[in-house]
Amino acid sequence: MLVNCVAYQDGRKLADIAREDISIYVARPECFVWVALRDPDAAELEAMQGEFGLHPLAVEDAHHGHQRPKIDEYGGSLFAVLHNIEMAGAELKVGEVDLFVGSNYVLSARNRAEPGFAAVRARCEREPELLKHGAGFVFYALIDAVVDRYFPVLDALESELERVEERIFAGHSARANIEALYVLKQKLMTLKHAVEPLIEAVGKLYGGRVPQICMGTQEYFRDVYDHLIRVNQSIDGLRDMVTTAINVNLSLITLQENETTKGLAAGAALVAVPTMIAGVYGMNFKHMPELDWQLGYPLAVAAMVLIDVYLFFRFRKSGWL
Amino acid sequence: MLVNCVAYQDGRKLADIAREDISIYVARPECFVWVALRDPDAAELEAMQGEFGLHPLAVEDAHHGHQRPKIDEYGGSLFAVLHNIEMAGAELKVGEVDLFVGSNYVLSARNRAEPGFAAVRARCEREPELLKHGAGFVFYALIDAVVDRYFPVLDALESELERVEERIFAGHSARANIEALYVLKQKLMTLKHAVEPLIEAVGKLYGGRVPQICMGTQEYFRDVYDHLIRVNQSIDGLRDMVTTAINVNLSLITLQENETTKGLAAGAALVAVPTMIAGVYGMNFKHMPELDWQLGYPLAVAAMVLIDVYLFFRFRKSGWL
Amino acid sequence: MLVNCVAYQDGRKLADIAREDISIYVARPECFVWVALRDPDAAELEAMQGEFGLHPLAVEDAHHGHQRPKIDEYGGSLFAVLHNIEMAGAELKVGEVDLFVGSNYVLSARNRAEPGFAAVRARCEREPELLKHGAGFVFYALIDAVVDRYFPVLDALESELERVEERIFAGHSARANIEALYVLKQKLMTLKHAVEPLIEAVGKLYGGRVPQICMGTQEYFRDVYDHLIRVNQSIDGLRDMVTTAINVNLSLITLQENETTKGLAAGAALVAVPTMIAGVYGMNFKHMPELDWQLGYPLAVAAMVLIDVYLFFRFRKSGWL
Amino acid sequence: MLVNCVAYQDGRKLADIAREDISIYVARPECFVWVALRDPDAAELEAMQGEFGLHPLAVEDAHHGHQRPKIDEYGGSLFAVLHNIEMAGAELKVGEVDLFVGSNYVLSARNRAEPGFAAVRARCEREPELLKHGAGFVFYALIDAVVDRYFPVLDALESELERVEERIFAGHSARANIEALYVLKQKLMTLKHAVEPLIEAVGKLYGGRVPQICMGTQEYFRDVYDHLIRVNQSIDGLRDMVTTAINVNLSLITLQENETTKGLAAGAALVAVPTMIAGVYGMNFKHMPELDWQLGYPLAVAAMVLIDVYLFFRFRKSGWL
Amino acid sequence: MLVNCVAYQDGRKLADIAREDISIYVARPECFVWVALRDPDAAELEAMQGEFGLHPLAVEDAHHGHQRPKIDEYGGSLFAVLHNIEMAGAELKVGEVDLFVGSNYVLSARNRAEPGFAAVRARCEREPELLKHGAGFVFYALIDAVVDRYFPVLDALESELERVEERIFAGHSARANIEALYVLKQKLMTLKHAVEPLIEAVGKLYGGRVPQICMGTQEYFRDVYDHLIRVNQSIDGLRDMVTTAINVNLSLITLQENETTKGLAAGAALVAVPTMIAGVYGMNFKHMPELDWQLGYPLAVAAMVLIDVYLFFRFRKSGWL
Repeated sequence: MLVNCVAYQDGRKLADIAREDISIYVARPECFVWVALRDPDAAELEAMQGEFGLHPLAVEDAHHGHQRPKIDEYGGSLFAVLHNIEMAGAELKVGEVDLFVGSNYVLSARNRAEPGFAAVRARCEREPELLKHGAGFVFYALIDAVVDRYFPVLDALESELERVEERIFAGHSARANIEALYVLKQKLMTLKHAVEPLIEAVGKLYGGRVPQICMGTQEYFRDVYDHLIRVNQSIDGLRDMVTTAINVNLSLITLQENETTKGLAAGAALVAVPTMIAGVYGMNFKHMPELDWQLGYPLAVAAMVLIDVYLFFRFRKSGWL
Repeated sequence: MLVNCVAYQDGRKLADIAREDISIYVARPECFVWVALRDPDAAELEAMQGEFGLHPLAVEDAHHGHQRPKIDEYGGSLFAVLHNIEMAGAELKVGEVDLFVGSNYVLSARNRAEPGFAAVRARCEREPELLKHGAGFVFYALIDAVVDRYFPVLDALESELERVEERIFAGHSARANIEALYVLKQKLMTLKHAVEPLIEAVGKLYGGRVPQICMGTQEYFRDVYDHLIRVNQSIDGLRDMVTTAINVNLSLITLQENETTKGLAAGAALVAVPTMIAGVYGMNFKHMPELDWQLGYPLAVAAMVLIDVYLFFRFRKSGWL
Repeated sequence: MLVNCVAYQDGRKLADIAREDISIYVARPECFVWVALRDPDAAELEAMQGEFGLHPLAVEDAHHGHQRPKIDEYGGSLFAVLHNIEMAGAELKVGEVDLFVGSNYVLSARNRAEPGFAAVRARCEREPELLKHGAGFVFYALIDAVVDRYFPVLDALESELERVEERIFAGHSARANIEALYVLKQKLMTLKHAVEPLIEAVGKLYGGRVPQICMGTQEYFRDVYDHLIRVNQSIDGLRDMVTTAINVNLSLITLQENETTKGLAAGAALVAVPTMIAGVYGMNFKHMPELDWQLGYPLAVAAMVLIDVYLFFRFRKSGWL
Repeated sequence: MLVNCVAYQDGRKLADIAREDISIYVARPECFVWVALRDPDAAELEAMQGEFGLHPLAVEDAHHGHQRPKIDEYGGSLFAVLHNIEMAGAELKVGEVDLFVGSNYVLSARNRAEPGFAAVRARCEREPELLKHGAGFVFYALIDAVVDRYFPVLDALESELERVEERIFAGHSARANIEALYVLKQKLMTLKHAVEPLIEAVGKLYGGRVPQICMGTQEYFRDVYDHLIRVNQSIDGLRDMVTTAINVNLSLITLQENETTKGLAAGAALVAVPTMIAGVYGMNFKHMPELDWQLGYPLAVAAMVLIDVYLFFRFRKSGWL
Repeated sequence: MLVNCVAYQDGRKLADIAREDISIYVARPECFVWVALRDPDAAELEAMQGEFGLHPLAVEDAHHGHQRPKIDEYGGSLFAVLHNIEMAGAELKVGEVDLFVGSNYVLSARNRAEPGFAAVRARCEREPELLKHGAGFVFYALIDAVVDRYFPVLDALESELERVEERIFAGHSARANIEALYVLKQKLMTLKHAVEPLIEAVGKLYGGRVPQICMGTQEYFRDVYDHLIRVNQSIDGLRDMVTTAINVNLSLITLQENETTKGLAAGAALVAVPTMIAGVYGMNFKHMPELDWQLGYPLAVAAMVLIDVYLFFRFRKSGWL
C-alpha cells in the first residue's frame, strides 16, 4: 500500500506526486523522491523496481521478508533491512523495514510494523538545512527512527528483569520466576538479532570507505552507531544478569529445600519422641513399676511435653523451625 | 555415477555430451561444461581429474570424504567442500558435496545426499542472462542451493526446541526433556560444523581479492554470505537457549523436589500426630482417668481428626499439599 | 550552574572572566578558556554552544544525558562523555561528565556528580609547565580525575567480595550471601559500563591518528589508558570470581542440605528403633514369656538404650550427627 | 640415537651416509640431507648443531623439551616443535617431535614417541616428483604425519564421549560417568594444547610472508592447516558437549534424587497409615465398642489393606512408586 | 636500597662504581651502567631519575607501585613493570619489579620480592658475547628471569589441582575441596594478572616496530613471548579445569545426597515394617485369634525378621544400603 510519495528539492517539499510521475522527478538530478510503502505486495515492489531501477536481489529480499538486518551496497545505491520492534502487551512484535536509497530517491517499505514514519517526514520537512543533504539524510533519519524505538523496548525488558529480581529475593513463586527469566532471555535474543547485525553495517557508513550517498552525514550515522552500541551493550549486560538470576534462583530454591528438610526433621522429632515414650509405656511387661504409680501418667505426659518444649526451642534457635 | 554432463555456451545449453567428448568442449574457451556426479568412486574421480586437470590434493580430499567445509583456490580453479544436511525423520543426515570449478567447467559430486541439483540446473537454464556469467554463476547457484537447504533444518530444530520448552514448563517428563535438549544440542553442533567454516570461505568470494572465476557475481556470493551469517546467528541463539533451557529444567526439577519434600513432610505430619495421640492412650498406666471416661474414645478420635483437619488446611494454605 | 570560568595563557591563569567575555578570549589564539558547569540546563548549554561553536549533536547528547561513555571528534573539537561513579553508602551513584574541548577552550559539565574538579584546576595551575600544553592537557587532567575515582569504587567492591567470601566459607546466612553476590554483580556491570567504552576511545588519543588537540600529551593519555585497562581487567576478574562464588555457594548449600538429610536420618533411627522394640513388647499375645520375666522391662529399656548408644557413636563417627 | 641419515638429490635418494659425511653433503647446494634422531641426548644434539649450524635457542629448546608447539624462524632456517599424541590404552601419551629445517637439511628428533617416520620417508622416496621440492616438502610430510596421528586420538575421544553419553541416559553409575567426563575433558585439553598453537604457526607457512623453504609447497601446508582447523573445531565441539553432559548428568542425578524422595514418601505412607490405625485400636479406652465386635479385627485389617491398596495404585499412577 | 651498581663495556664488567660516578659512565656512549635497587624509597628513585633522566610518569608509577604489568616506551627509553610471584608456603606472594632501560643504562628496582637478580648478573657476565648486545640484552635477561619464576608457581598450582582432584574423586571432605578450588582460582587470577598484560607488551619487542634498544635481540624476546604464551595457555587450561572441578564436585555432592536419601528410605523401611506388625498385634480387639496361639508371638517376630531380611537384601542389591 502506497502511504505517500513526495518530491523534494533544496531541502524543501516540492509536491505530493502521483506514482506515475515518479520517473519524471527521478530524472531531475536536483530533486529526490521519497516514497513510503506499507506491507507492499509483489506487484507494488515490482512497479517500484521499474521506477527506481532497484537491484533484483534487493527486491527479492524485500519480497521474501524475514531477512536479517543488513545494509547492502548495489553500485551507487543502498539497500537496508531493519527489524522494527514494538511491545505488544508483554510480547515483542517484530516487523521489518526495508529501505532502498539512491542518489535521488528513498523508498521505505514497512511490514508488520504499526508505527509509520510520518513523524520522521515531518521532522525532516521542518529542518530544510538538514534535508538539503538529500537522500542520505533521509536514510539516516529513517534508521535513527527505527533504532530509537529499541530504547523503550529495552527499558521495558529492564523493568521486567527488575520485577523478577524483586520477586526472586522476596521468595515468591519460584516457578513463575524461572519461566519469566526464560521468556525474558528469549526477548533479549530477539532484540539482539535486530541490533547486532546493524552495528557493523552502520559502522561502515561513517568510517572507512563511506558510500557516496552518506557523504556529509557521517556524523549522524556515527550517532546512530553509538546508539546501537549502547543498546547492544545493555542487552549483553541484561543477558548476563538473566543468566546470573537463573543461577541465583536455583541457589534460593536449593536453599529453600534445605529449609524444608530441616522443618521436616524438626517436626518429625517433635512427634516421634513422645510417640517413643508412649510406646515404652504401652509395653505389656508384668513388672513395670511406673505403671502402678499414682502420678505415672501425668509424669509421662509431662516428660513428653518438656522434651518437646526443649526441642522446640533448640530447633527454633538453630533456625530449623 | 555420472548423473549428467552438459555443455553451455552464451548462457544456453548446447547439448548433453558424452563423457568422452568433455575434453573437446573444455578446449573451446567460449563454452563451459557442467558435470554432475553422484557418489563417485575413485575411478570416476580419476577420469574427471584427467578431463579437467583437477589438482591432486583436491581430488584426494574428494575421495577421502569427511572434509570440513571449505573453499580452496588452486591456481585459477576452485575446490569447494560443502556439507549437505537433510532431516531424515528426527535425525540429521549429513552428506557431502564437492565442487570443482574452473574457468570453463563445473564438476559437482554429491555423496550420501538424497536431493540432487536438477532444480538448480533447470533454474539456471531458464535464466540465460545469468547463466552467461559462466562457471562462476553455476558455482554460486550450487552453493546457494546447499545453503538454502539449511533453513528447513534450522526451522525443524527451532520447532523441536519450542516443543521441549512447552513440555518443560508444563512439567512433563523431565528425563525426556533433558535427553531431548542434549540431542538437540548435538544436532546444532552438526549444523554449525557445516555453516561456520563456510562463512569465512564464502566471504572471500565477494570481498578482498576475489578469484577470477567469481568476478561479476560478487553480489550473489554476498547474498549467500548473508544467508550463512543468518543461519549461524540463529544456531548460536538456539545453542544459548538450549543451555539456558537445561539450566531452567534443572531449576524446575530442584523445585519439584522441594515440593515433593514438602508433601512428604505434610503427609508425615498428618499421620504421625494421630499416631502419637493413639500411642499416648495406648499406655498401660493404671491411673489414666481419660481411659475410663464414657466419651474418652470418641473425644480422642475427634481430637485426632480435628488436629489433622487443622493441619491439612494450614499445609494446603502454605502450598505444602 | 556556572561554577567558574577562567582564561589561561602560557600555562598561567590570566583572570576569572565573566561569561560575557568568553568570546573575547576565545578569539585570541594564544589563550584558552576553561569553563566548568554543574547540572547545566538547556539554556546554559545553548549559551555555551553559541560562545564556543559546539556541534549540535554533541550539545543534544549532553542535554539528553544518559549517554554511554565515548569520545567523539567533530572537526577539530572533541566531545567526551564520562560516567562519574561514587559510592553513596553501599550504593553506586552514577553521574555524567560531559567535556567539550577545542583548540582554545575546555567546557566541562557535570551532572548528578558530587565532587567537582576544583582540585584538578588547582593542580593544573600549580604546574604551568604542563598547563602550557593547553586545552589538551586540561582534557587529560579531567579524564584522569574521573578515571582515578574508579579505583576507590573498585576497592570497595573488592572488599565487598572479600566480606561475602568470608561469610560463605564461615557458613553464615546463605540467603544474604546470594543476594549480596547478585547486587555486587550489578554494581560491577555498572562500573564496567563506565569503563569499557572509554578504553577504545582513549586508546585513539595516543595511538594511530591522534587528534590535533592531544598532540604532545599522548604519553599522558596512554597513562589513562593503562589505568582503564587495569580497572577493566580487575572488573573482569571480580565478575569471574562472583560467578564462581555463586556456584561455590550453591555447592555449599547443597552440601549443607546433604548434612541436614544425614542428621534427619540419624535422628529418625535413634527414635525409631526404641519405638519398634516398644511396639514389639506392646503386642498382646497371650504367650510372650519375656512379659512375665521379673527383669523383662529393665532389659527391654536397657536394650533400647544400648542400641541407641551404639547407633549414636556410629553416626557420630561417620559424621551424620 | 641416530635412526638414519640419508642424502637426496633431485627427489631421489643418493645414499645412506655416515654421520661424519653430513657436512660434505650439506655443502653441496643441489642435495639435501635428512637425519632422523630418536630420544637424542645433549651430545647428539650438540654434534648436529655443529653439522648444520643450528641456532642455540632452538637447540636449547629441543634439549629442555616440554615446549609448547611452535614454528620459529631463525634467519633462513625453521625450527618446529610438535606434540606427538598416541593412545596408550585409555591414556594419552604425549611425546615431542623437534624439526630443524634449512635449505638443504632436515633434522627430526622425536622424544617419548613410539611411532617413527619410516613410513613418511618411504612415501617421499616413492614420489620423486614431490620430493624434488626439497627440504620444505619433507618438512610438510613430517608435520602432516604428526597431525594425521591426531585423528585416531580424536576418534577415540569421540567414542569415549559416546559411551559415557549412553551410560548417562541409561542411568548407569552416575559417579563413574562424572569421573569419566572429567578425565575426558583433561584429555581434550591435552590434545588442544598440541593443536591450537600449531594452527597459527602453520598458517604462516602458506599465507602472508612465506619462508623461503616453504615456497612452492604452500598448498600442502594449507592442507595441513585445514586438518588442524578441523581437529580444533572438533575438540571445541567435544569440550562443549562434555560440559553439557556434566550439566545433564547433574540434572539426571537431581531428578533421580527427586524420585528417591518420592519413593521414600510413598513407602512411608504405605507403612504409616496402617500403623496409625493399629495405634488407634491399641488405645486402652474402656469404652471402645469396635473392640468388642466379632468382626472388629478383620475389619480393621481389611481397612488397612484396602487403604494401602488404594494408596499403592494412586502412587503408582502418579509415578511415585 | 642500592644493591649494586656496575659499569660494563664490550660485554665485560668494567668496575663496581659508586653512585656518584654513574653520570660519568652514562656519559660514555661505549659503556652502560646496570644498577639494582631493592625496595627503593622516593628519595632513591628521585636520585636515579636525576642520574638517568627517567621520565616523570615512569618514576611516578614506580613510586606508587601496584601497577599492572606493562612495557612503556618513553622516547628512546623503556619502562617495564613486572609482577614477581613466589610461593610463600601455600600462598602467592606478589612483588613488583620495575625496569628502566635506556641505550646505556639498566635500572632494576624490585619491591616485596625475595629473590634478587644476582644470578642473572652472574650469567650475563659469564657470556660476554651476549652481553655485548648491551642494555637490551640485560633487559631481556631480567624479564626472562622474572618470567621463569612463573613456571614453578604454575607447577605448584597444577599439583594443587591434582591433589584436590584426587580428594574429590575419593569422596573426601567436599567442603574443604570447594574452598580449595575457590582459593586455587583466586591464585590463578593473580598469576594471570601478572602474565596476560605482559604478552602483548613483550610481543611488541620482537615483531612490528621494535624499539631501538631491543634491536638485535628480538629472537630472545620471542623466546620470552613463547614462555608467556605457554604460561597463559596453562593458566587458562587450569581455570577451565577448576570450573569443571567445581561443577563435578557439585554433581558428586548431589549424588551423595541422593545416596543419603536412599539410605534414609531403606533404614526407615527396615524399622517401620516391624513397627507396623507390632502395632497390629498391639490392638486390643477381643477377637484376635492369633493372640491366643501358642506360637503367635514367635511367628510374629519371625515374620518381622524375615520381612526385614528380605528387604535388606533387596535394598542391598539395588544399592540403597
